[in-house]
Amino acid sequence: MATGRIEVNSLRDFATAVYVSIGMPEPDALIAADTLVQADLWGHQSHGVMRLSWYAARIRSGVCSAVARPTFVSDFGALAVIDGGDAMGQVLTAFAMKEAIRRAKLHGIGAVGLRNSNHFGTAMYFTLMAPPEGCIAFLSTNASPAMAPWGGRAKTVGTNPWSWAAPAGKHSPMVLDIANTGVARGKVYLAKQKGQAIPEGWAINAAGFPTTDPAEAIDGIILPMAQHKGYAIAVMMDMLSGVATGSAFGSGVHGPYQSEHRSGAGQFMIAINIEAMQPLADFNARMEQMISDLKSVPLAQGFDEIVYPGELEARHHTANTRLGILLPEDTLADLRKLATETGLGDKLPF
Amino acid sequence: MATGRIEVNSLRDFATAVYVSIGMPEPDALIAADTLVQADLWGHQSHGVMRLSWYAARIRSGVCSAVARPTFVSDFGALAVIDGGDAMGQVLTAFAMKEAIRRAKLHGIGAVGLRNSNHFGTAMYFTLMAPPEGCIAFLSTNASPAMAPWGGRAKTVGTNPWSWAAPAGKHSPMVLDIANTGVARGKVYLAKQKGQAIPEGWAINAAGFPTTDPAEAIDGIILPMAQHKGYAIAVMMDMLSGVATGSAFGSGVHGPYQSEHRSGAGQFMIAINIEAMQPLADFNARMEQMISDLKSVPLAQGFDEIVYPGELEARHHTANTRLGILLPEDTLADLRKLATETGLGDKLPF
Repeated sequence: MATGRIEVNSLRDFATAVYVSIGMPEPDALIAADTLVQADLWGHQSHGVMRLSWYAARIRSGVCSAVARPTFVSDFGALAVIDGGDAMGQVLTAFAMKEAIRRAKLHGIGAVGLRNSNHFGTAMYFTLMAPPEGCIAFLSTNASPAMAPWGGRAKTVGTNPWSWAAPAGKHSPMVLDIANTGVARGKVYLAKQKGQAIPEGWAINAAGFPTTDPAEAIDGIILPMAQHKGYAIAVMMDMLSGVATGSAFGSGVHGPYQSEHRSGAGQFMIAINIEAMQPLADFNARMEQMISDLKSVPLAQGFDEIVYPGELEARHHTANTRLGILLPEDTLADLRKLATETGLGDKLPF
Repeated sequence: MATGRIEVNSLRDFATAVYVSIGMPEPDALIAADTLVQADLWGHQSHGVMRLSWYAARIRSGVCSAVARPTFVSDFGALAVIDGGDAMGQVLTAFAMKEAIRRAKLHGIGAVGLRNSNHFGTAMYFTLMAPPEGCIAFLSTNASPAMAPWGGRAKTVGTNPWSWAAPAGKHSPMVLDIANTGVARGKVYLAKQKGQAIPEGWAINAAGFPTTDPAEAIDGIILPMAQHKGYAIAVMMDMLSGVATGSAFGSGVHGPYQSEHRSGAGQFMIAINIEAMQPLADFNARMEQMISDLKSVPLAQGFDEIVYPGELEARHHTANTRLGILLPEDTLADLRKLATETGLGDKLPF
């Protein structure tokens, strides 16, 4: 364990204990805790244990149910809709993705729409459930308003992240996980918590001017990635995650940093059984070839290597598992406060 | 008909006759011709009849089969794989999308992987087959190398476009159709054909320097949209369209502007039956609400209105159907040459 870093298992145990202390069943608490620690392991600190206190506040205030009782609203064989009853998005999405994978094995492709869910953390946590099962997965979610529709100046469109993941043979899975804003909203919160300025081009403030102040950006408007394209993708992901699943959409969705509103977030996920298309071994060999081809391209100036999507996260995972997780002081303070409030000071891993 | 514009039906008839003259069965020729004219109607001139001579050259050279005989390689109920035998991508993708929709109606969701296909024109032509059937559709394709992997300086990654479409109640369908380059490669060709410079930021030349010369850009490297994000999306679309379907991938895919190589392009498409999730009328009402919400946002400076994805194309379609299609002089010359070569001078609509 490197100095100042926190051992992964003890951090996960602490987060699990916090969730259990506020009413979550232990298996569900473990899933929710693991999603946070896993985000930190991948180097996605903005979606890591810094969010534990936010989720806890939502359960305590009652807008998020501690106990998940997912119920099937419709079942059409390869496609089902599940009502999450406002429970933890992490627990519901893990449940729903398992269902999608099960259905993919029966029908070649399987999908689940999830309504009345919650923010679920990091999309790739759930799409990465598919590769060990020989499946490719897609997942989209809507999220609370973070940007304006293209040409507008009021926040009504969420970051609405989406992810694809696939096995990649001897390599860690290939995985894409992106928000449709130029930058993930959580990264703005992280910059604020670290007291750092944000780069220009990430956001405009409430008055419509460019800003490098994360606090102003949070009150202002995050810009979409690739201009109007990011806006269009975000709207389509809301169509799929919110409108089609029967959940809230647009301004009707509330974020995890608010403890006074139910979320209304929805998710849509698809699993594809690779064996229904070709032998899995062939697919894996082709993925290895693809990755090898990408990595053998001559380098542009300023680059040391070419990576495939998800490779950096896998590398961070390995390093952080060995070294332990480094958290900003503000997050440590939040966790200490949470430990005191829940009487779990003895479980605090630092 | 406005001056200098070409009547839509006569342009479609001409393109159909050209395809028939080089061996395509008439129903297939009509599909292939319609995709070209439809792209012009939407204002996507880069994918319009300017490409007719490219596709014709590929059929004549024998790298693309005039007669499509799609065969099922695997059938897993909701998911099937079709081998296109190097026939026209437009004909194969229309066939495969119908199959995906048919399977969605049986299973809630349906998907088809298409291998040994060809460039198919505009992705939204095919996803827009789903909304009239009460379905949402997704479609991805791979394409010939147009950009470097992020951090590299050789073209090995295609634009790999993808599309989602959904019904939108009283409105024309909501539809997204994007290439993962900052700009569609066809737009660079169009600029070259029009003799116009391209904006900076679209491409670097073969030596790795920024360029505004479309000819240099064609020999150079188009930049991905949203930097590394566009690269990652493009790779995932190749995973789906090329690797998973059993088609070519990466540098193995050849483009429509080459008449000496078989394409190897693959496509993957998904259809989702909305009625399996909620009554279609409810979905449509929710889509109308979503669009109304988007359009009622106060405007940013420099904008007259907020549009939803696909709205501008639908508007162009209406106007161009009424006014006729305006083509650049180079395209007119290409069509004249084609008419002479195929003995169809009497069918030339201008």
